[in-house]
Amino acid sequence: MRITTVPDEQGKLVWAHYDKGRVSRTDLSADMLPNISNMPAPADDWTDTPQVMPPVVSRPEKVICIGLNYRDHAIETGSEIPDTPVVFSKFNTALIGHGDTIRLPAISDQVDYEAELVVVIGREGRHISADQAMDHVFGYTCGHDVSSRDWQKGRPGGQWLVAKSFDTFGPIGPCIVTADEIDDPHRIAVKMILNGETVQESTTEQLIFDIPALISHLSKFMTLRPGDLIFTGTPPGVGAAKTPPVFLKDGDVCEVQIAGIGSLVNPCRQDG
Amino acid sequence: MRITTVPDEQGKLVWAHYDKGRVSRTDLSADMLPNISNMPAPADDWTDTPQVMPPVVSRPEKVICIGLNYRDHAIETGSEIPDTPVVFSKFNTALIGHGDTIRLPAISDQVDYEAELVVVIGREGRHISADQAMDHVFGYTCGHDVSSRDWQKGRPGGQWLVAKSFDTFGPIGPCIVTADEIDDPHRIAVKMILNGETVQESTTEQLIFDIPALISHLSKFMTLRPGDLIFTGTPPGVGAAKTPPVFLKDGDVCEVQIAGIGSLVNPCRQDG
Repeated sequence: MRITTVPDEQGKLVWAHYDKGRVSRTDLSADMLPNISNMPAPADDWTDTPQVMPPVVSRPEKVICIGLNYRDHAIETGSEIPDTPVVFSKFNTALIGHGDTIRLPAISDQVDYEAELVVVIGREGRHISADQAMDHVFGYTCGHDVSSRDWQKGRPGGQWLVAKSFDTFGPIGPCIVTADEIDDPHRIAVKMILNGETVQESTTEQLIFDIPALISHLSKFMTLRPGDLIFTGTPPGVGAAKTPPVFLKDGDVCEVQIAGIGSLVNPCRQDG
Repeated sequence: MRITTVPDEQGKLVWAHYDKGRVSRTDLSADMLPNISNMPAPADDWTDTPQVMPPVVSRPEKVICIGLNYRDHAIETGSEIPDTPVVFSKFNTALIGHGDTIRLPAISDQVDYEAELVVVIGREGRHISADQAMDHVFGYTCGHDVSSRDWQKGRPGGQWLVAKSFDTFGPIGPCIVTADEIDDPHRIAVKMILNGETVQESTTEQLIFDIPALISHLSKFMTLRPGDLIFTGTPPGVGAAKTPPVFLKDGDVCEVQIAGIGSLVNPCRQDG
């Protein structure tokens, strides 16, 4: 089942089913995330020209990101293979949906792309064991962890948070695919296609910390809640690691393509 | 005017005025934060035994924290004086209110205290100039940036986020004092009192980056929204910097005392 959102008559985001380019509203609420089997069937109010929004009704409380989680990406950045997940976050004001514009800020000239599989949490929990972790997953979506390398590096304290939290630096979508439709989330192809050229290509088999390990680790610290997002890390091929480096510029088009989930396409525009 | 929250009949948090230990519900909503002058006068439904909750109705979208922002504290930790604010964050699941218990997690034995002045944002903005920054401040409250030093240091990527986001590691309260009641937020005494002994004592005159500078800096990256919190940094005297180091233990009582705002008291309990 594919889940997205559409604005209602008042402009408020409501849940919707998504099927073959058509969208129908449903009353799935955030609290119902665990109850996929209770979801109503698609209603009759189809529309052929949906304005598909980020596939979350309300801003998630947590946008958790994992750094250096693909073995090859850790190697390409010259980092050691971590023995503990590297956890950082984006603020939720960074989130945008499929088709929305990534604004390249005037105060950075090293904005880089990162394609990622995003896990959507569906059930609250703390101290979740790896064995039970998958019971807390509602579904998956594509994510783009847009990253300002000049703010991320060489600043006091390591300013990953602000470097990755510029408004529009968190595209997600185009829909959430519920967990029951994904046979094995650890055998999914993940690609970034920049202006039609594949620049990142790997599979989630390369994850250093798999999804149960991440959920178990994170929930040692904090309560995970329905709607929380986990960006699981990016494969090799980021622009900063290329010779010469490649950074995003006005007019670029980024496409995160994840097998079985879809394509998340976002154009880039330079801010004045 | 002092603002806090109380649970309504359904247990949902609602805004309330707080005056001389008495609380009255009001219909101030998050969207009304900028409109202090429109706030209704205290109603008649006083209660003498309020269960005062964290002074925010809904979990704030952002709990922004500033590191090393007191000149003396940067020196005591052996850090350089930063030339740019050191920004990190807590997840909002860490927030608790006055009187709630700080749970000391089993996986850390170096939990430290940090008393902080917290700014509550009242008006949405991006690219806010320092000159206009104070127009975006709704008020102030006391905050306690509880910090696990063994998770904060010596981990890949600098794990400040998880070290400071354990559930219960974000006490705030006991109320928000609206900005109109604070003559000069840069001349406020900030203390941490641990088991009756003053262990941190300074004033906001020592801030390296003052409140307008912080709001201006943060809004270069991201849209600030009503309800967002900014923990402005902690004065010298943290436990990790003492000889020998002092860490929180079962039975300790922490009191953040900020002149003109109040006292935020939280007991500590060791988790099994």
